[in-house]
Amino acid sequence: MDSDLPGYNRYFKLGGKDIWSFINETAAAQEKSSGEKVVNLGQGFFSYAPPHFAIEAVKKALDVPMNNQYAHSRGKPNLLKAIAETYSVRFGRELSTDEVQVTTGANEGMLAVFTGLLERGDEVIVFQPFFDQYIPNIELSGGKVIYVKLLPPSDFGERTVTGDEWTIDWEQLEKSISNKTKMIVINSPYNPVGKIFNEQEMRRIGALAIEHNFYICSDEVYENLFFIPKLTRFATLGNDIARRTITIGSAGKTFAATGWRIGWVIANKQIIPPITAAHTRICFSTPAPLQEGVASALQIAKTNNYYKQMKEDYVTKYKIFDSIFDELNLPYTVAAGGYYLLVNFHKVKIPTEFEFPPDILKEKRDFKLAYWLIKQFGVVAIPPSVFYLPEDGHIIEDCLRFAICKDDDVLVEAVKRLRPLKKYIVD
Amino acid sequence: MDSDLPGYNRYFKLGGKDIWSFINETAAAQEKSSGEKVVNLGQGFFSYAPPHFAIEAVKKALDVPMNNQYAHSRGKPNLLKAIAETYSVRFGRELSTDEVQVTTGANEGMLAVFTGLLERGDEVIVFQPFFDQYIPNIELSGGKVIYVKLLPPSDFGERTVTGDEWTIDWEQLEKSISNKTKMIVINSPYNPVGKIFNEQEMRRIGALAIEHNFYICSDEVYENLFFIPKLTRFATLGNDIARRTITIGSAGKTFAATGWRIGWVIANKQIIPPITAAHTRICFSTPAPLQEGVASALQIAKTNNYYKQMKEDYVTKYKIFDSIFDELNLPYTVAAGGYYLLVNFHKVKIPTEFEFPPDILKEKRDFKLAYWLIKQFGVVAIPPSVFYLPEDGHIIEDCLRFAICKDDDVLVEAVKRLRPLKKYIVD
Repeated sequence: MDSDLPGYNRYFKLGGKDIWSFINETAAAQEKSSGEKVVNLGQGFFSYAPPHFAIEAVKKALDVPMNNQYAHSRGKPNLLKAIAETYSVRFGRELSTDEVQVTTGANEGMLAVFTGLLERGDEVIVFQPFFDQYIPNIELSGGKVIYVKLLPPSDFGERTVTGDEWTIDWEQLEKSISNKTKMIVINSPYNPVGKIFNEQEMRRIGALAIEHNFYICSDEVYENLFFIPKLTRFATLGNDIARRTITIGSAGKTFAATGWRIGWVIANKQIIPPITAAHTRICFSTPAPLQEGVASALQIAKTNNYYKQMKEDYVTKYKIFDSIFDELNLPYTVAAGGYYLLVNFHKVKIPTEFEFPPDILKEKRDFKLAYWLIKQFGVVAIPPSVFYLPEDGHIIEDCLRFAICKDDDVLVEAVKRLRPLKKYIVD
Repeated sequence: MDSDLPGYNRYFKLGGKDIWSFINETAAAQEKSSGEKVVNLGQGFFSYAPPHFAIEAVKKALDVPMNNQYAHSRGKPNLLKAIAETYSVRFGRELSTDEVQVTTGANEGMLAVFTGLLERGDEVIVFQPFFDQYIPNIELSGGKVIYVKLLPPSDFGERTVTGDEWTIDWEQLEKSISNKTKMIVINSPYNPVGKIFNEQEMRRIGALAIEHNFYICSDEVYENLFFIPKLTRFATLGNDIARRTITIGSAGKTFAATGWRIGWVIANKQIIPPITAAHTRICFSTPAPLQEGVASALQIAKTNNYYKQMKEDYVTKYKIFDSIFDELNLPYTVAAGGYYLLVNFHKVKIPTEFEFPPDILKEKRDFKLAYWLIKQFGVVAIPPSVFYLPEDGHIIEDCLRFAICKDDDVLVEAVKRLRPLKKYIVD
């Protein structure tokens, strides 16, 4: 930069490029040089539109003048009510709107939770792999991240595994708790693994939260996509756990509308005021017409089989996309929930003559795999070592994460493009 | 709270209720007890809808599937382009989209600027009165606020004054600059005063910014409403000032759409990356369909006389509303820009028998005036001492701030309701 301009925040100066920009730019460069569209299974945006009823609800809301002015910081009354009603069914008890805060996406919701609840120096336990935004969000709020590993089975390179086989390093977790522990962050269904924490695991985490008195921030944005009989939630595991639980939800994931930026926080009503205060300071209020649209959509979705249909659609999507890895005999973690597939490329050998640019060469193997997949096959995936600390990324460096929240024909095309991987597999 | 729950952030615990919630709740309670609607000139939301062409542009955008998915963190290309083109005219030079960051409202824009540019301990100079959100936004980003007073003429209680008569305490400003000074925040047109900084003042601030090498964060969200011949902008005062200037704009203020939460930051392209990084971490991206709507609206507004008409509308609104204070002989600051009127109630005597609740009794006189105005006249205004440090609020405690961004008939009704103030005026 100009040598004589004032400097800027070291945190961001050192942060470098985020993975999403890096992958999107590599993909765009490939499209330009090859003249052919890539199949983008990188970022978790939907390749299709939100349901018609949700779009129409927003349009209707725009016609009411006051729906275009500041919403109350807590959220529009219709949306607070729709969320409370929806989760009264999901949690199996009557929720009050005093337990709900509407946020500008789940991401800003988590920042508001951290900002509202953390004192400087408070510790927050986060599992590796983690969704990358958690880390700066906690640090911006003055919190300190304490990392605990979730470990895949040692033979994941050889065979397809289940989410239940990814196990918490309990010893490390227990050692990580201190008198500064204020919170643990859990993501279930779990991006990028596809694991859903089971009741036994959740109760054990819950017992630690009670014993050491910390909050459980449960990021459940993929809650409507689970392919096992039951999605267990911290908020339903008895009052002692529930009252320490902060549940995060997302209209973006629920209604294929990641660009609307509507999320919510459900928590003990006694901690909603500081979360509201933080939300007010961060972004004042959440876009009003989109709130009204989501309020209507949540009410309509209760009655038109929307969630059941969505789940069936995703069973089909996984069937299409899993098939190529079964065919290639490449292992993956069977997704119990969410819309990602974590595939293990341990058996894949990148040709030695393939040339990498210098900035990829110095990265872990998953970056090389991702780069090669874009250049050689025109398929975009995310290198999941970005969800680990640099020193722990080797755990997952044989893997790639694919987002399958795409039209079926996109997935069919991806399968077709990935078939030639066969000749690079060394069994 | 439950005695055994983990505690929460002291900053918000001590912060108490924000002024907007306090005033809105007092107004709602009055409506309930009196059975009559209050005339709300408190918060600066519009009582009317955004222009038809802007609403239609959002609706059209919603019909494009990808407009409902994550926007790029920098902003949708159409909006970046529309902003760059609009400000190329306003700044009198060709702007590139590399100088623009789209934000989720101007408020989040300023938080992204502070978060992206401040190191912990950096000092930011803010004038009193200040827009209340500036303070937590700077502090959340690790900055330290240094307050400098803007002073009204000493006889403001006796006569109507101009914004030019509110003067910067230059001595205090110069003494406030240290080697930790990273930025000064300016709001012009100035909420709540209605002042527009003149070129002489701006050049003197600019010279200090060059000499001591700090940024000028110029909050110009009311830029389309100025009632003097020319709105001077830091970004146009020569390269040495311009390259240190960060200009903040707002679609909410421009298109009467405060609930859309679309704003922008225009700055030296070398400091856009850290601002983008901060924005990404704070809220990931800005609502996509509303961005497309604003992009179209900015293009349409260039050709349909929108800004000229809006300005004429506001000249009329001020004419309606100023008239009652001229009639009552109550002084105010003539608004050179923005949509507020700061009225001085020094000559008004609240009847001694009027009963205040205990939490109002302990506040400054402007809180009592605001409370009394709601209860006695059914008119809502904001006590502007909230825009000062507690020890400096006395400077403005005879004043109330009225927002006039309301339909003309609302203003006419307010005038009618305020007329009986006459019998409480002691000349």
